[in-house]
Amino acid sequence: MTATDGRAATALADAIDTRGAAAFVHVGDRSDATLRYLAGPALPDRPSAFLRTATGKRLLCPPPGAASAARETFDGTVVAAPSLDANTAGERAAAALTARDATGTVLTTASVPHAAALYLERAGYEVASTDALTAARARKTAAELDRLRAVQTAAVAGVEHAEAVLAGAKWESESHADADADAASLVHAGEPLTTAALRREVNAALSRAGVDPAGNTLVAAGPSWRDPALGGDDPVRAGDPVLVDLAPRDAAGYHGRLARTFVVDTDGGWERRAHLAVTRAREAGLAELTPGKPASRVHEETAAEIVAYGFESVGETRTDGTRALGHGVGLARREAPRLSGAGDLEAGHVVALAPTVFDAAEGGGVRVADLAVVTAEGYDLLADYATSLSPTDG
Amino acid sequence: MTATDGRAATALADAIDTRGAAAFVHVGDRSDATLRYLAGPALPDRPSAFLRTATGKRLLCPPPGAASAARETFDGTVVAAPSLDANTAGERAAAALTARDATGTVLTTASVPHAAALYLERAGYEVASTDALTAARARKTAAELDRLRAVQTAAVAGVEHAEAVLAGAKWESESHADADADAASLVHAGEPLTTAALRREVNAALSRAGVDPAGNTLVAAGPSWRDPALGGDDPVRAGDPVLVDLAPRDAAGYHGRLARTFVVDTDGGWERRAHLAVTRAREAGLAELTPGKPASRVHEETAAEIVAYGFESVGETRTDGTRALGHGVGLARREAPRLSGAGDLEAGHVVALAPTVFDAAEGGGVRVADLAVVTAEGYDLLADYATSLSPTDG
Repeated sequence: MTATDGRAATALADAIDTRGAAAFVHVGDRSDATLRYLAGPALPDRPSAFLRTATGKRLLCPPPGAASAARETFDGTVVAAPSLDANTAGERAAAALTARDATGTVLTTASVPHAAALYLERAGYEVASTDALTAARARKTAAELDRLRAVQTAAVAGVEHAEAVLAGAKWESESHADADADAASLVHAGEPLTTAALRREVNAALSRAGVDPAGNTLVAAGPSWRDPALGGDDPVRAGDPVLVDLAPRDAAGYHGRLARTFVVDTDGGWERRAHLAVTRAREAGLAELTPGKPASRVHEETAAEIVAYGFESVGETRTDGTRALGHGVGLARREAPRLSGAGDLEAGHVVALAPTVFDAAEGGGVRVADLAVVTAEGYDLLADYATSLSPTDG
Repeated sequence: MTATDGRAATALADAIDTRGAAAFVHVGDRSDATLRYLAGPALPDRPSAFLRTATGKRLLCPPPGAASAARETFDGTVVAAPSLDANTAGERAAAALTARDATGTVLTTASVPHAAALYLERAGYEVASTDALTAARARKTAAELDRLRAVQTAAVAGVEHAEAVLAGAKWESESHADADADAASLVHAGEPLTTAALRREVNAALSRAGVDPAGNTLVAAGPSWRDPALGGDDPVRAGDPVLVDLAPRDAAGYHGRLARTFVVDTDGGWERRAHLAVTRAREAGLAELTPGKPASRVHEETAAEIVAYGFESVGETRTDGTRALGHGVGLARREAPRLSGAGDLEAGHVVALAPTVFDAAEGGGVRVADLAVVTAEGYDLLADYATSLSPTDG
């Protein structure tokens, strides 16, 4: 039994019924959030096929995942199917449907591999896609919220560690003070502190907390603020805004999202105003998290607050009109609900809010990001963490 | 320019030419190894479309990845395309081809999303799949080998740390000795040592070494040997074989693979014989790594050596006939060459060899795994690490 099973089953049964379909089929591997949702986390690297018909569900799964899935995370039939790829998974899925005398339409997802869909068509099925799972996945179950709270708590441990390193580096650096202290890197463990070194420290803290950094850890200072996702290795200076932006993943595939920006030795100027703008924007966005409100309102109110403080709202992008200041989070790092499109919020939606300002002339930006669940009454943060600009050590 | 660019370009040009096709199109996201191969690591979570025509290549990429890719990792044209999903990526790719007056066949991969392929078909193209990139990816460039060596060196740091924890736990546990010492867990940092605690320690060491554990770290002792991929949390006892099996990933997406099995306090029985069998099997497999030899010979010689020592060869699976004792490694954790199928080894192939024995009655198994590149003369290990069964601290 997965944390999500009942909800996925209902969504698929409804979609199959509404469309008069014979079955639903999806093919994916361990990295596929949809297949994790349908079949649990114990999946192999190689493609598996999930089938749902009127009589039940089955997973065609190449070893070693088959045994794992059968025992632990899938409550349907598991069939060990050696050496599946997108072609053979589709071929096996088609054969399994034909053996069950299924005819007519087979529903699948937009992301199912083309090769797998072709095998279903060649076997005489009409293939049609459904987005029923997207909406189902957006509404988290209580078991999923427990997982998301746990991974978000681990993200807190990561940001706390970054804060402790930065606070410690302030003291260590003052004992190394030289004539050109403003231009020099902070010092940590006797070495110049860089964004790459701080990223390694944060990732080690996430690992100790039992979650995977998942390649999502952004640490930026100075030039690397221009595109934090590129990584890079810049010196961390006392006056720089330092971004620590984490989206770790647990063993079942659920993601957290927590970002804070710290300045070790702020002169109280631009970055204090920017920090005030994003923290007020965070409050404005959270206040919109209510069932029945348009999801786009969350983005609009967050952006409006940033603009009210005299900054440009840049969201998480810089180059086009879709710059939502947040997104849904779950088995994918970004999933429904979208804050830049149509659709209303529902209880159980989990949303990352990430108000950001960026100014190339100031040499950086300020971002805070938090994860909240929409409740019947409004929202709950999945973990609560202070938004102070100055790093403190515990 | 990516580490792989010239090779991918040649493979695609050959495939397009051979099939008389107008173009090659692929759609994927940051987790898609094929798209990383074609477009570099700076990709967003949302789908991007890669196009290659006679006149050049382009990437249709939703922000924020567009700017990153344009600046750092892609040497073709980058077009910022907001809010792509599998549907819109296919629609945009079709429109871009039509705007270039392309007609006829469009090549793609077996794993391209069905929705994207449908848009190409609706635009009048005949869609055909090619596996040209699979073979190209298997032959690593010098730049790729540099990355693989670096991530494998980080994997060594992870196994070294596990060994140090186990060696330290032996001494710490002896100072805690009680009447039932055989049945008790080892002690680490004042707490009972468990597989979950050791997994967190190893992952922190990988993170400090600058690579991502990528959810691939297996630590097993006792019951968790039955399926190490399931995780679990078992006590680590002095007489247990402890598996530490790592496949971390670097920022560009390249994987390592290193496994060792340790027994803190061996009685010299079953596990010593099993360890001898797998280390001899490792040598037998490595000796087969020569260009022109069948890849399946590597598996066969490795397995034969295990059987010669009186053990059952279980490879990495337990439930079917495809249990290869290794696999290719690169941008995917497992990729070509396959050691269980047809095909010859070529210089530049990177292969993980993972001989394993398992005996439920003995309560565990023994595995060692290493990564080697096939060279003109034979092979080179991407990192060299001792295979001793007793853990030593440095």
